[in-house]
Amino acid sequence: MTKVHAYAATTAGGRLAPFEYELGELGPGEVDIKVSHCGICHSDLSMLNNEWGMTAYPFVGGHEAAGTVEAVGEMVRGVSVGDRVGLGWHAGACMHCGHCMGGNHNLCAEQVGVIVGRHGGFGDRVRCQAEFAVKIPSGIELADAGPLFCGGITVFDPIRRFVSPTDRVGVIGIGGLGHMALQFARAWGCHVTAFTSTDAKADEAKSMGAHAVINSRDDNALEAAAGSFDCIISTVNVPLNWEGYLNALAPKGRLHLSGAVLEPVPVNAMGLIMGQKQVSGSPVGSPRAIATMLEFAARHGVKPRTEVFAMAEVNEAFKHLEAGKARYRIILEA
Amino acid sequence: MTKVHAYAATTAGGRLAPFEYELGELGPGEVDIKVSHCGICHSDLSMLNNEWGMTAYPFVGGHEAAGTVEAVGEMVRGVSVGDRVGLGWHAGACMHCGHCMGGNHNLCAEQVGVIVGRHGGFGDRVRCQAEFAVKIPSGIELADAGPLFCGGITVFDPIRRFVSPTDRVGVIGIGGLGHMALQFARAWGCHVTAFTSTDAKADEAKSMGAHAVINSRDDNALEAAAGSFDCIISTVNVPLNWEGYLNALAPKGRLHLSGAVLEPVPVNAMGLIMGQKQVSGSPVGSPRAIATMLEFAARHGVKPRTEVFAMAEVNEAFKHLEAGKARYRIILEA
Repeated sequence: MTKVHAYAATTAGGRLAPFEYELGELGPGEVDIKVSHCGICHSDLSMLNNEWGMTAYPFVGGHEAAGTVEAVGEMVRGVSVGDRVGLGWHAGACMHCGHCMGGNHNLCAEQVGVIVGRHGGFGDRVRCQAEFAVKIPSGIELADAGPLFCGGITVFDPIRRFVSPTDRVGVIGIGGLGHMALQFARAWGCHVTAFTSTDAKADEAKSMGAHAVINSRDDNALEAAAGSFDCIISTVNVPLNWEGYLNALAPKGRLHLSGAVLEPVPVNAMGLIMGQKQVSGSPVGSPRAIATMLEFAARHGVKPRTEVFAMAEVNEAFKHLEAGKARYRIILEA
Repeated sequence: MTKVHAYAATTAGGRLAPFEYELGELGPGEVDIKVSHCGICHSDLSMLNNEWGMTAYPFVGGHEAAGTVEAVGEMVRGVSVGDRVGLGWHAGACMHCGHCMGGNHNLCAEQVGVIVGRHGGFGDRVRCQAEFAVKIPSGIELADAGPLFCGGITVFDPIRRFVSPTDRVGVIGIGGLGHMALQFARAWGCHVTAFTSTDAKADEAKSMGAHAVINSRDDNALEAAAGSFDCIISTVNVPLNWEGYLNALAPKGRLHLSGAVLEPVPVNAMGLIMGQKQVSGSPVGSPRAIATMLEFAARHGVKPRTEVFAMAEVNEAFKHLEAGKARYRIILEA
């Protein structure tokens, strides 16, 4: 039996404390990953606080894990002990429904969230269905890989599906997701504009790939940009001047929501119709999309800018995140 | 000089009365169409009532005209005197911007609406830029052609761009647009569901191509259809149970707005994200898209179901439309 030394909270919003658990017998299609690093995503915080009403305690967060495969089940193909792999939001899916068979495992109705009703990557080991342990190319360090598996794929997937290198792309919110979106969109060949409410981030946004920076709270600047974006990716989870952003789209433009804002987004039908515009959303991405992203990221040197905490400092790391101070992704080192 | 015998209103919502005007000299790139028939679209009513604040009086409506070319300007290519043609919402565009050069003339910022600041098809003649007089294939009668040029292309264009023959398609509102959407989606190869609040239309909807009919006011029926549609096209201009329709989409599904509802459509970001869904809109279509539609309509026998009024009965026709009695498109015969 394999013991995991993890960090868990026993109540909503509570402090995480050392927590040991047994993984139990390895299933024939499963792998165990020896975690070397794990990113902290804002949804770890939402889950810790049970904001979505689906958290089980003791709660072990962590769904941006990177490490090496330590054990593989007897039926596992394609992944071997010693492989450098990462694990994002999904630990498994049914593998036989239309979505899975179509390559869209992230849409499977029976998808298994790594930290939903099971234990995630804030520990020295994490288990998953083998297909969800995606190999990390040699050009990407384990210390940098984790955030690509959730924050990275969340912004890469809409670029992959909807964006042409000739497009003018806007990214709203230059945080954990947005700072990778700037890099991906720049490497994709696009003209890139960062929307941020933090003027201090302007120079850094440019160093990450933005050709231009607009203060996201400056309605006049937004109005001046009317009709100019082919795609705007929003990574924030607060209500914005949505009408202004829809107006900032060029005809045929798209507003893509990667941030789970809880208040309904009011969409002006006439504006949508006359400009032939679209509003869309998407959840992370499939294992195949993650593999495609990793290859692209390695080729272009796209990686998160990280702040590293020891795993034992997980509570301090959460405080840093909650205070909005993360620049730009926090990594826990095992 | 060419005189037009038309019907015009002189005030918002006023009765239309006989009205004569001179067309003036034919421009080198223009054509005159001898109108044989003209459909009435709900937006003729909106323009008559100046609901969009852009109506000029005397107002001659009519943007679903069909007839024969009577005169062509000296620079005109591709259209000849005697050609059977139709004219929809657009009478012209700049022809040199990126949208026009990309084949998306309906998105041109300088687009000219047939009934916006100029006179439309409720008369014996109408003038337009030659490229917007689209030839009608021999398989389509002039008496049937007009409604395809606005109502038809408005629902055909999203099908052309977004729908696969393997899709399950829903059409909300079985009126002027919706009854053609059912036919197009059926001919496209899709499984088709009609959403109508009028139970009496159920059998007719099936005769137009619907495999299934759901009462659009039956929230339980809508809930039972959760997750089942790849594309839902809304042709209505009143607020609906939008959350219910978004839930009725399958993962990767699309809600397309062809009806200009004035109240904002509240979009639940989390639902959009988790289901990787889209909300879109579009305005009629380009001349090339209209030509493509006409060829498809002729091949499949898609045509509006019409009620014919004499042009002189235009006021009675508007009353019939306003009372919600049109089954399903009114045609004025010149």
